[in-house]
Amino acid sequence: MVVEGMKIARKRYPDVEYVLFGDEGRIAPLVPQDMRDRVSIRHTDRVISNEEKPSQAVRTGRQSSMGLAIKAVKDGEAAGVVSAGNTGALMAMAKLALRTLPGIDRPAIATLIPTIRGESVMLDLGANTEVQANNLVEFAIMGEVFSRCLLGHVQPSIGLLNIGSEDLKGTDALREAHQILRDHPLNMRFHGFVEGDDIGAGTVDVVVTDGFTGNVALKTAEGTAKLYTKFLKDAFGSSVLAQIGYLLAKGALAKVRQRTDPRRYNGAMLIGLNGICVKSHGGTDALGFANAIGVAVDLIKNRLNERIREECAHLAQSPTLSGPAESSSPSAASG
Amino acid sequence: MVVEGMKIARKRYPDVEYVLFGDEGRIAPLVPQDMRDRVSIRHTDRVISNEEKPSQAVRTGRQSSMGLAIKAVKDGEAAGVVSAGNTGALMAMAKLALRTLPGIDRPAIATLIPTIRGESVMLDLGANTEVQANNLVEFAIMGEVFSRCLLGHVQPSIGLLNIGSEDLKGTDALREAHQILRDHPLNMRFHGFVEGDDIGAGTVDVVVTDGFTGNVALKTAEGTAKLYTKFLKDAFGSSVLAQIGYLLAKGALAKVRQRTDPRRYNGAMLIGLNGICVKSHGGTDALGFANAIGVAVDLIKNRLNERIREECAHLAQSPTLSGPAESSSPSAASG
Repeated sequence: MVVEGMKIARKRYPDVEYVLFGDEGRIAPLVPQDMRDRVSIRHTDRVISNEEKPSQAVRTGRQSSMGLAIKAVKDGEAAGVVSAGNTGALMAMAKLALRTLPGIDRPAIATLIPTIRGESVMLDLGANTEVQANNLVEFAIMGEVFSRCLLGHVQPSIGLLNIGSEDLKGTDALREAHQILRDHPLNMRFHGFVEGDDIGAGTVDVVVTDGFTGNVALKTAEGTAKLYTKFLKDAFGSSVLAQIGYLLAKGALAKVRQRTDPRRYNGAMLIGLNGICVKSHGGTDALGFANAIGVAVDLIKNRLNERIREECAHLAQSPTLSGPAESSSPSAASG
Repeated sequence: MVVEGMKIARKRYPDVEYVLFGDEGRIAPLVPQDMRDRVSIRHTDRVISNEEKPSQAVRTGRQSSMGLAIKAVKDGEAAGVVSAGNTGALMAMAKLALRTLPGIDRPAIATLIPTIRGESVMLDLGANTEVQANNLVEFAIMGEVFSRCLLGHVQPSIGLLNIGSEDLKGTDALREAHQILRDHPLNMRFHGFVEGDDIGAGTVDVVVTDGFTGNVALKTAEGTAKLYTKFLKDAFGSSVLAQIGYLLAKGALAKVRQRTDPRRYNGAMLIGLNGICVKSHGGTDALGFANAIGVAVDLIKNRLNERIREECAHLAQSPTLSGPAESSSPSAASG
């Protein structure tokens, strides 16, 4: 799947070179002759399983395919890493090896999502179960740069996911983050609070939330899409007339499937690390993996991390950044 | 809308009597002649607005339509209250006037949701932004009884909404609640942790979560449904063939709309109070309001609160309920 994905990605990004980590005996025969000059293989037997705990992976996984791939980024040998492996292990090992960017306290997981207005960015999707206000502010900064790099938005709007749009609602962390984002000259188009239905509506370009809520929301959206698909299938099968209708509309309906194809949105970014690190869904296919490679290439070409670093430096230098921002966000001032 | 909803509900529940609270001059002319013996009107000028803070409503709203309707339940004059007003005010006023059921520390908001397997119950949907383990255990008990009363499930399965099915994931409150529900003889079919996509899949009959996550998940599902509807509409309009296909499948597609019609799921229960209190969506129509009335009638007829009381008494008497359950859930032991 990884090698097939690489073959698809090659057509879109002919100038990219690949280093593959894993079982050389299995990988080498899969690499096509005409790609051999752009592909090198590093052999290792050790694989991090999906069941392995992040703590164990960190302790014993340095020589695994995942560990070596991350090390290649750390050593400057590779510009980014793409993995379809264990998310928790990837995050833990990448965090330890690459460290966080200056000004960023906690990395997050970010992805693109389909909306009525096009595409938006959502983060965090599971790296941080519980967050403080400064984490949310950092997610907003990173999400904003991510949106500019990957979607080309000039000035993306930012929303904080809450259970009401009034200032009184939500947790202390949300209210405090709202105040910081509203009051400080972050050079950012801050929309304010948004609610769950604003995600699909595309009310904002970047939806900022903690990893617990973001993970539940993303998976709830996936589940609802499946529910709808099932209801549609039932409806089209319920009468001969509906079946004929389906056949006539089949081509058009394929576009709906395409617009909501999970493979199209494959490739979540582990954002906030000193290196580009993209997580592909484990259950995807070659096309999905090629999209994850594409995410990594776009973020590298558009200098995501340099731009996050600039924003954080700007934030730290801001003369008005005293009071709530500084007291709640010591790490943001250290950049 | 309220009076029209009552007229629809009358056909389904001919034996129900209604007490309407509000502007008599406006309400009286709307009540049909042949319902006058089943309807009484209590006049009041004071209305709780949607902008009013719950604290203010509690202080100054006793003579409002909402305040008087709740008082009628407290005084035993009405068996339940249905309101399409300010949710926060309704919860605050109902909690103060009706008090919580013995054994219940915090009331929650529960509703039915459509799933691939039929219908499930989800709670809390916004009453409790932050929860402890004992609150989640109480939500599980109440949701289980709610499912039996409203859906007739004999032994509904219960799931705790989390970001992974492993025991290690999630917050402390979730892990502790998981342990209590798993280890104590609660006479309940506890499935364990479920994830966001399990909601639409109908993996469990009752999805238990905190009010923040539940509110975001429910609204995210609504937003995704709208996104899908929009994509479908675009697809059917994209070619003449697709348009003809739509016309042929129209009848069948209407069934999809019906199965996911928000009006069908209108009527959220403020569960855990000493009285039946149902919240209708403010933006619904007569049909939606009639469904909210139906929820109240079903819960009253099926003795929801007596059954919750029995479960809590059973829980309090359980000889094995020492250790984590008792230490984390003092209120559950007082019932």
